[in-house]
Amino acid sequence: MKNVVMKFGGSSVASIEKIMSVARILVKRKRDLNNVVCVVSAMGDTTDILIKKAQEINKKPQKRELDVLMSTGELVSSSLLAMAVESLGEKAISLSGAQAGFKTYGRYGFSKILDVDTKYIEEKLIDNYIVIVAGFQGVNGIGDTTTLGRGGSDTSAVALAAKLGCDCEIYTDVEGIYTVDPRFYKKAKKLSSISYEETMEMAHLGAKVIDPRAVELAQKYEVKLYIALNTCNVLGTVIDKEENVEKSIIRGVSSIDNILLVNKKLENQSIADLFSELAKNGVNIDVINQNIIEDEVYVSFTSVIEEKDTINSIGDGFNFIENVSKVSVIGNAMRTEPGVAARIFDVLNANNIKFYQVSTSEISVSIIVDTVIKEKVMKLFIREFDL
Amino acid sequence: MKNVVMKFGGSSVASIEKIMSVARILVKRKRDLNNVVCVVSAMGDTTDILIKKAQEINKKPQKRELDVLMSTGELVSSSLLAMAVESLGEKAISLSGAQAGFKTYGRYGFSKILDVDTKYIEEKLIDNYIVIVAGFQGVNGIGDTTTLGRGGSDTSAVALAAKLGCDCEIYTDVEGIYTVDPRFYKKAKKLSSISYEETMEMAHLGAKVIDPRAVELAQKYEVKLYIALNTCNVLGTVIDKEENVEKSIIRGVSSIDNILLVNKKLENQSIADLFSELAKNGVNIDVINQNIIEDEVYVSFTSVIEEKDTINSIGDGFNFIENVSKVSVIGNAMRTEPGVAARIFDVLNANNIKFYQVSTSEISVSIIVDTVIKEKVMKLFIREFDL
Repeated sequence: MKNVVMKFGGSSVASIEKIMSVARILVKRKRDLNNVVCVVSAMGDTTDILIKKAQEINKKPQKRELDVLMSTGELVSSSLLAMAVESLGEKAISLSGAQAGFKTYGRYGFSKILDVDTKYIEEKLIDNYIVIVAGFQGVNGIGDTTTLGRGGSDTSAVALAAKLGCDCEIYTDVEGIYTVDPRFYKKAKKLSSISYEETMEMAHLGAKVIDPRAVELAQKYEVKLYIALNTCNVLGTVIDKEENVEKSIIRGVSSIDNILLVNKKLENQSIADLFSELAKNGVNIDVINQNIIEDEVYVSFTSVIEEKDTINSIGDGFNFIENVSKVSVIGNAMRTEPGVAARIFDVLNANNIKFYQVSTSEISVSIIVDTVIKEKVMKLFIREFDL
Repeated sequence: MKNVVMKFGGSSVASIEKIMSVARILVKRKRDLNNVVCVVSAMGDTTDILIKKAQEINKKPQKRELDVLMSTGELVSSSLLAMAVESLGEKAISLSGAQAGFKTYGRYGFSKILDVDTKYIEEKLIDNYIVIVAGFQGVNGIGDTTTLGRGGSDTSAVALAAKLGCDCEIYTDVEGIYTVDPRFYKKAKKLSSISYEETMEMAHLGAKVIDPRAVELAQKYEVKLYIALNTCNVLGTVIDKEENVEKSIIRGVSSIDNILLVNKKLENQSIADLFSELAKNGVNIDVINQNIIEDEVYVSFTSVIEEKDTINSIGDGFNFIENVSKVSVIGNAMRTEPGVAARIFDVLNANNIKFYQVSTSEISVSIIVDTVIKEKVMKLFIREFDL
């Protein structure tokens, strides 16, 4: 019997009917002679509804209490799923994060997994149970229930797969990972495989199929991931080590809207002072550029539109450019294949595209453009790299 | 600083507004220099909604999973209440049954409290927290979440008060305990005090103000109980030892509908065989009568209408009388005051009331009558004993 971890997100268990569908998939898999561990999120928008209730009561609810509240969503879905599996004739048991062995540390609401003690899960697998684990949660050193932050169920699933030494299958409401978001570009191609690094870049840069923390963990423990539609009847995308994935120069294009571009002339202030001040106020900063023009220091950085008020409260002299987006071209081959960046700039130049900022990583090039021309830019890249 | 345990039921926390009201009461009590522990039930009909969901999925859901599911209701209400208290400027922490130290044993769904380890609660009280405990739940020897059965939050509250050596106040949607259910008889008198035994009889015999298991526990550990309206602005009823309560011959009248009266002629079967067979099938039996007429053994017993099919499945020869109710007269003084039973039978006789069965305990007399004349019978007793 081979172990497998299967993760189903909130939209996959949003109703009684959907829970029954997932149960049928688990039972089939079990009867195909697998030891099945299923990680499940809260039903539909349960978590959002709970958060809204909390905020009606207290604008700034204690993070500890919010974790208690939010964690109930997965307890409900996991116990209902266990009942659904049992109604189909297989044994099932639901486990809270704590019962499943998830020990966490760090902040409430954004806890990190310290370790997973899978002893109890393994006992139950030997006893022929389908084990249903409440995702997104664990227990910290003082016995409090904690949550892992949005997308945390993906991380729960990968951590379990790492400890159980098996593959991790993430079922969701899209068919896999695409070269471009198919909601934006209908002819986008589904990738049969992609590397961990490329997936992380895609996720960080706006493609929200899987939580990047989960991919990072999978890479660290060499857990093979598989992303597919929650009906399990269409082939999805495998995420694996670079050497195991299909070769391609450019894997995809992604974008993020609501970027805030901030410019400031530095006077009587070092760049270090500025950014330590921003950090103290919890402002998330992305790309930073510094220019020195005629002995004057100009600094520009990107953040998100929600941070504008906070940035303004720090001091005078900030200039904001709003309604801009970040468009990114991602591909492992950039590392070895020369000329990709050149092709990107040629395309932009040939089409008179004005851009504010460029940043590059080993496997991506990102440019900041006005949101109104974002689609045009993406389509240029799609054509150029045949995505 | 004096400890106090305050319990609020589901109807007291059924909405955000009601949760805020309870929070205000707790904060006021804390500022009156009490160490406040609050036990809370699930919001409104949450538990019923969860059970309904479970049954849509699985007609006979695993009891273990049902306990996981049901326990989430109290986690939600307790964390929300903690947020509400904090919004009013006092520190608060919510604790699950397990975190509050409730160790249980016995069946899922009807677990019993083995012990409560209040060490963590006491630490938090010293730290000036208002401690909010999820009622109705605990954890068993193998680490599973368990529930204490309907009304279990009352038991949670009394168990905590016993361990903390303090009084237990049960807030609900009625003003206290009445001589007769005020929904049935508007002029019913509210009792300022009543003994544990009388309360248990009232509860077992149909007055559903407090769970009889909770009263039993309170009696065992001599916890003084106080039942009052959840607005805390009307005096309620104290439940205490007999020597501490106001004297009265008859404390009240109560009734239960949907009684099933079963008659059977015993042939080739001992009475022990019959009742062991009924017990094996989980049939709850109340009063048993046996008559021997001309060497034939006739047995009759009462149960509830829901058990009819199960009883029928056990064998032939059962005769059922339906649409009957049990009317009970309760009072500690029956023990010492002679002639109460005689007065009851005089009243019934003088008014030509036909009854099927009579049973007596040390402090109550119960009769089985047709439901259609239940009200008439109750009013006769109310007049006779000036209730």
